[in-house]
Amino acid sequence: MSDEDLQLAPMHRIIKKAGAERVSEEAADELRKALDAIGVRIAKEALDFTRHAHRKTVKAEDIVIALKKVLRD
Amino acid sequence: MSDEDLQLAPMHRIIKKAGAERVSEEAADELRKALDAIGVRIAKEALDFTRHAHRKTVKAEDIVIALKKVLRD
Repeated sequence: MSDEDLQLAPMHRIIKKAGAERVSEEAADELRKALDAIGVRIAKEALDFTRHAHRKTVKAEDIVIALKKVLRD
Repeated sequence: MSDEDLQLAPMHRIIKKAGAERVSEEAADELRKALDAIGVRIAKEALDFTRHAHRKTVKAEDIVIALKKVLRD
């Protein structure tokens, strides 16, 4: 696997799922890079909550609260 | 593959990459669901731009502009 954590095929499926007729390879790759970066951003916010709770294990609740900091309403 | 487009292993890698020592299965699954939903949201915004440009193919530039609508600064 490359340096990117996410794969390309799921990106095509996600964009098609949104209603697209056709998807360029570059668009799929752009979404992959974006979701990878967003994932790291969410994970870093989540880790703040993990540490604040004096835990070493990131839990689902940390991810849920981190989401609110990253996404627009 | 399940109904979820993204796989679980990359979620563990992404959260570890953010600096986590340990990651619960539930946290990885929560991030997977979140990134899947965010991906669809970005793709739907992108599709608006695709259609506005009278194209049938989603291009990278549509994804880039859609990102700004979905993420907080």
